[in-house]
Amino acid sequence: MKKIVLTYGTFDLFHTGHLSLLNRLKALGDELVVGVTTDEFNALRGKQTIFDFENRIQIIRNLKCVNLAIALQNGEQKADDIRRYGVSIFGMGNDWEGRFDDLRVYCEVIYLPRTENISSTYIKKLLEVLNRTPISDIKQALDPTKSFVGPFDKQIVRKDNR
Amino acid sequence: MKKIVLTYGTFDLFHTGHLSLLNRLKALGDELVVGVTTDEFNALRGKQTIFDFENRIQIIRNLKCVNLAIALQNGEQKADDIRRYGVSIFGMGNDWEGRFDDLRVYCEVIYLPRTENISSTYIKKLLEVLNRTPISDIKQALDPTKSFVGPFDKQIVRKDNR
Repeated sequence: MKKIVLTYGTFDLFHTGHLSLLNRLKALGDELVVGVTTDEFNALRGKQTIFDFENRIQIIRNLKCVNLAIALQNGEQKADDIRRYGVSIFGMGNDWEGRFDDLRVYCEVIYLPRTENISSTYIKKLLEVLNRTPISDIKQALDPTKSFVGPFDKQIVRKDNR
Repeated sequence: MKKIVLTYGTFDLFHTGHLSLLNRLKALGDELVVGVTTDEFNALRGKQTIFDFENRIQIIRNLKCVNLAIALQNGEQKADDIRRYGVSIFGMGNDWEGRFDDLRVYCEVIYLPRTENISSTYIKKLLEVLNRTPISDIKQALDPTKSFVGPFDKQIVRKDNR
């Protein structure tokens, strides 16, 4: 019988930290099912993303290590997913350590260490900056008709004038 | 005989615009070879990236549509790559229209339209802002011990004070 691994995530701004976790989860079994949080679920949790659900799940679905990408629509579907897909192992990064222990009545629950390297650290710090900024302001910043990019330009000008 | 498609790119901050182009290139043939620019080649061209070569090629190598990911080390290896991998079609996004026409003596050369949607537009605009800013400033901005994040905070404060 095939050993099915299940994980969940948002996977916004996809990077090699996500990839490494998914590859290591896949290596625990034969097939990997990945639940991607919907925009509605993220909104309920107060979590905002740069990329919408369709763009986030498209990348996950196109990875060699992923056998099936599904929508994670709420926090109540976990037991159903485990039954539906015949899941043997539920795995998450260890930043979620202990948060899914209630699933141990249905299957094995594993938390894997997050890998760090210079580049994933860069994007983490980029996200820190973005997370500190309301998404509405970022969207305004990304609109070239708005002047929010000003501070970047000013920074450059200030540097040139030194 | 298998029809081999070759393309080149930097693939920094991987998004569904990249993915869509790679999937459409793959659909032109049987196998897709993707050359990813090395950091040294980017430096020579004055092109800076957020992610280094190893992180950029890892994502490309892990995509279902990609059969082989290779390093693009310079502008002179194109004819060699076409011979080495038995390439029938060389394809790029049409933002490169005409720039690879010299390869028509070796194989078919195709330029595909770039797809646009809200999210890839967002990252394009994000990149516009980033491109306008020297990478050294971005790296400084991403260092939480530095104060470059100030402009984001100031913008929020200014908004709140209105």
